[in-house]
Amino acid sequence: MTDSFSRRGLIQLGLGGAAAGVLAPGQAGAQRPDSEKLGFAVVGLGKLALGQIVPGFLNCSSAKLAALVSGHPDKARALAAAQGLPVDAIYDYGNFDRIAHNPRIQIVYIALPNFLHAEYTIRALKAGKHVLCEKPMATSIADCEAMIAAAKAADRRLMIAYRCQYEPLNLEAMRRLRSGALGRPRLVVTDMGRQSDLAEPSDAWRLDMAKSGGGALADMGIYGVNASRYLLNEEPVEVRAWAQTNRSDPRFRTTEDLISWQFRFPSGAIGEGSTSFSYAGTMAYRVLCEHGRLVADPGAFYGGNRLTVEGTAGERQPKLPEIDQFAREMDWMADVVRGKAPLVSPGEEGLQDMRLMRAILDSVARGGATIRTDWGYRRAFDPAAVVGVPAPA
Amino acid sequence: MTDSFSRRGLIQLGLGGAAAGVLAPGQAGAQRPDSEKLGFAVVGLGKLALGQIVPGFLNCSSAKLAALVSGHPDKARALAAAQGLPVDAIYDYGNFDRIAHNPRIQIVYIALPNFLHAEYTIRALKAGKHVLCEKPMATSIADCEAMIAAAKAADRRLMIAYRCQYEPLNLEAMRRLRSGALGRPRLVVTDMGRQSDLAEPSDAWRLDMAKSGGGALADMGIYGVNASRYLLNEEPVEVRAWAQTNRSDPRFRTTEDLISWQFRFPSGAIGEGSTSFSYAGTMAYRVLCEHGRLVADPGAFYGGNRLTVEGTAGERQPKLPEIDQFAREMDWMADVVRGKAPLVSPGEEGLQDMRLMRAILDSVARGGATIRTDWGYRRAFDPAAVVGVPAPA
Repeated sequence: MTDSFSRRGLIQLGLGGAAAGVLAPGQAGAQRPDSEKLGFAVVGLGKLALGQIVPGFLNCSSAKLAALVSGHPDKARALAAAQGLPVDAIYDYGNFDRIAHNPRIQIVYIALPNFLHAEYTIRALKAGKHVLCEKPMATSIADCEAMIAAAKAADRRLMIAYRCQYEPLNLEAMRRLRSGALGRPRLVVTDMGRQSDLAEPSDAWRLDMAKSGGGALADMGIYGVNASRYLLNEEPVEVRAWAQTNRSDPRFRTTEDLISWQFRFPSGAIGEGSTSFSYAGTMAYRVLCEHGRLVADPGAFYGGNRLTVEGTAGERQPKLPEIDQFAREMDWMADVVRGKAPLVSPGEEGLQDMRLMRAILDSVARGGATIRTDWGYRRAFDPAAVVGVPAPA
Repeated sequence: MTDSFSRRGLIQLGLGGAAAGVLAPGQAGAQRPDSEKLGFAVVGLGKLALGQIVPGFLNCSSAKLAALVSGHPDKARALAAAQGLPVDAIYDYGNFDRIAHNPRIQIVYIALPNFLHAEYTIRALKAGKHVLCEKPMATSIADCEAMIAAAKAADRRLMIAYRCQYEPLNLEAMRRLRSGALGRPRLVVTDMGRQSDLAEPSDAWRLDMAKSGGGALADMGIYGVNASRYLLNEEPVEVRAWAQTNRSDPRFRTTEDLISWQFRFPSGAIGEGSTSFSYAGTMAYRVLCEHGRLVADPGAFYGGNRLTVEGTAGERQPKLPEIDQFAREMDWMADVVRGKAPLVSPGEEGLQDMRLMRAILDSVARGGATIRTDWGYRRAFDPAAVVGVPAPA
């Protein structure tokens, strides 16, 4: 549940993108009849669910809202009424397991604070449902492993909501890098952070180590960790990190603020990454290749992303289609469950980032020590596997 | 002598800026009569001298070309004729010290390969001349110290040619950061590099450790080291670095290729920097502050630099005046000698970068060890001290 960075702050900076709920041209073209759409239960009615996920169903062609799970009955009832859901489609955390008996629910979308991901994912899987879980996948490696095991035991699909892996700019960036036209990548630099606000409930838990599993790193830095891997299409073998955290700032009692890390990759490329809860809203990266450069700034907003590709043929800014990234993810998950799409971002993907973030925090705790990360995980990122996302004009 | 990066390569990338020799509006407005201009001897007729320095005198108001020093008599004679210099204004490395007896020379511009900077700077100072020396200042800390001592002993001015400290984009960046409108800087990221070509004579010596003192770091990375300091207006207290160098590439027999470093600053800001002789031409930085961002890309080209400032009031791209940066530096040096301008970038400034680059290379050699750099040097970078450079419209 890392997506609810302060939209207001970003818009003040002129960085805000298209609002969720905006249809891409043709995105709703392949609408299935409502009766054929798979039903989602949304768990956790926070900022992300209210602002992005629930409105996103309007733009879905294969997914629909079927149930709400919340600890706030009034909020749930009002939203259900507004969405045309019956009263028996409302659950709370006490009766959550009864979703097992609701055949209108095929998929559960976990949009809870990070420390609750594991519990509700596992309960949903045990209830026989498939799960789409927000990133970071959980707050510990053990929890991630338990979630993967639970999906296997239940023979259900578990997908982690890495929206950038289903998004036009980032897919185009992968294609450009894989084409070889820019030569081999030598350096990828990712900066992903924003100002946090302890008075915002959605930030208060993120600033709490026990609830978020890692402050800015878990909320924003994870985008850079993940992007470094999918841009280079390889896994880091070493990492080390420095942090700079003002402990007299009440926001940073338990989590780190600014972290700067370095990755070493098998190809000889280096990754530099930063995250912070005290610098202005930034989701940017640069990839410096032998014969060209690729700059995404912003590269991971909900909309309004901007890609610049500079090669021997000159500088281009591909015109990127605006899509509803949440609708795209939910449709993808529905297609995965139907057997019509590959599981591009499974639990193992969430576990790998969790292990890398843990290595970053371990390095910080050990004064910047180098941590080996070549534990054998290998993921091939193939942008061609993600069909149906419109390419730049 | 770090400025002759491949213009062709950069232009192919769409990154090439205005050609040297282009006057900024008003730059030639305060022309002194030729008889009042101070005379320069240019030492080393390589790419930088021919492409930038010699043509730059056309745009100078206080400086003029008075002599040439070269090991190639034919080249020197042809250039002298074209520039209207008498034959007795030509020197070679054997008779160089006779410049002492030429009253038309007040200042010597050292544009030689790095390993010759110290010798010719010291000889020029002993000949009673003031010296403008290209960066990096030399190839060792001891040489830098000897140069500073020689200037003191001779009571002559020694200025290091940090052109970015006299350039509209970088001065504007300093002003914006100092104004406080963006809040405190948290992170500065600099990427400075280009493709090198062993077949180019001007690159062959740069790829040779003994002649350059540090490959890509000494040629391009120095811009990032220097920018981190003047952008933050403080000195790093710790540095560490990783390198990735393909030793089977004939270019990288003695120098490192890709280096990625981290600086820790007293304010709690972190610096990330990279340099490379195998990634595409890049001279870019990002400064992430509490309430805004500052992006320069390119930020250190001869022309065509681009600054983006994002704050609470929105995003701005200040319209930067194009100036002849070499003319600006030479005029500044002439004004320093006249006592009309402060010595903004003295030998101590070159020494500080040399020590920091040495610390980066030491860290690389020691597997990325952290090196303390709080040896007490403190430089205040005040953009208001650099008068006469046109500000953005």
